[in-house]
Amino acid sequence: MKIAVLGTGEVGQRLATKLATLGHEVTMGSRTADNAEARQWAADNGGAHGTFADAAGAAELVVNATGGLVSLAVLEAAGADSLRGKVLIDVSNALDFSDGFPPRVVTPDGGSLAEQLQKAFPETRIVKTLNTMNNTVMVEPSRVPGHHNVFLSGNDEHAKAEVAALLRSFGWASTQITDLGDLSSARATELLMPLWLRLYGVLGPVDFNISVVAA
Amino acid sequence: MKIAVLGTGEVGQRLATKLATLGHEVTMGSRTADNAEARQWAADNGGAHGTFADAAGAAELVVNATGGLVSLAVLEAAGADSLRGKVLIDVSNALDFSDGFPPRVVTPDGGSLAEQLQKAFPETRIVKTLNTMNNTVMVEPSRVPGHHNVFLSGNDEHAKAEVAALLRSFGWASTQITDLGDLSSARATELLMPLWLRLYGVLGPVDFNISVVAA
Repeated sequence: MKIAVLGTGEVGQRLATKLATLGHEVTMGSRTADNAEARQWAADNGGAHGTFADAAGAAELVVNATGGLVSLAVLEAAGADSLRGKVLIDVSNALDFSDGFPPRVVTPDGGSLAEQLQKAFPETRIVKTLNTMNNTVMVEPSRVPGHHNVFLSGNDEHAKAEVAALLRSFGWASTQITDLGDLSSARATELLMPLWLRLYGVLGPVDFNISVVAA
Repeated sequence: MKIAVLGTGEVGQRLATKLATLGHEVTMGSRTADNAEARQWAADNGGAHGTFADAAGAAELVVNATGGLVSLAVLEAAGADSLRGKVLIDVSNALDFSDGFPPRVVTPDGGSLAEQLQKAFPETRIVKTLNTMNNTVMVEPSRVPGHHNVFLSGNDEHAKAEVAALLRSFGWASTQITDLGDLSSARATELLMPLWLRLYGVLGPVDFNISVVAA
């Protein structure tokens, strides 16, 4: 599949590399056409690179791996025409560190970043997922032993099914993928980040994740 | 130990009953001295009941099991003199359902309810815990199979150790009790409630909890 990964940071690099390894035609998108990280990633991984608009325009599926505080601006740069009708996987978190640690989770209009993006791009099929864990775990869930979870939120059932299939190709078992409901449920997973950061403080730089255990 | 449980709702009843079963002298506190639920609970469980001030004043340890939106007023009714120097276990969550579901988590001053209470009662040793699960699981963790977690947040290490011992008497293993740090870490667990509510929507009325799984 032709996939655009928007964002050249650690999360974007990790997802883009995994997707390329799985045989997808990946274009890494960034603000400028000559971004050094994107160019290097493309050279190292047999991928392509370009502006956000170039990457999204050529893709069948788009991954938002930019920082949550700039995601709306990034999608506006990509443009509604490039995003129309496409599945967009939103893995971003909007964390404001301006007052230090712990950061504040920015909740646009009292909701979630994912809903803010959906409102701005109503014809894009946004699915929030993978935003509750370290990027190493996103693409290699077996790094954490036993049962643990990845969550899905979105308004389009077909889009969620497509994203779940992609997650399975990453190594997630169906029993680990929990569909929380429509996109408003992204509020719940975006608000998990403060706990993740505290657990990181307690556990240190090890792979970990949240598991839902039911009787 | 002499323990005051403030609040006559389901959470308060559950905790008060467990504590009485374990041999503690429990007083259920409520707004008025003649609260029907508190009187009934006391009659059924060999406990006492009284106003918030009566209950807290006589207690060595206080449990705040009131709704988070009224907790500050409840502690003010109990009075600083009744709370001074005591460990206060805060299990409350401040959820505003005025705009329907999902509720908004109220975060006073951008922080947590627990910190708001601590600021108002600086000489009380507040420990936030048990606020991330159903009340059935709070007092009987074995209802959920295998590993799952309860979190501790507080500024006073001795108070946290005392609360951890109480949790162990409820059936929590030491390996299940995760100390997240000072009371500002209560922000992380208070923000878990939206996920809990979504999971309740998915799983239905079964006992479940969050587990932290690390490599």
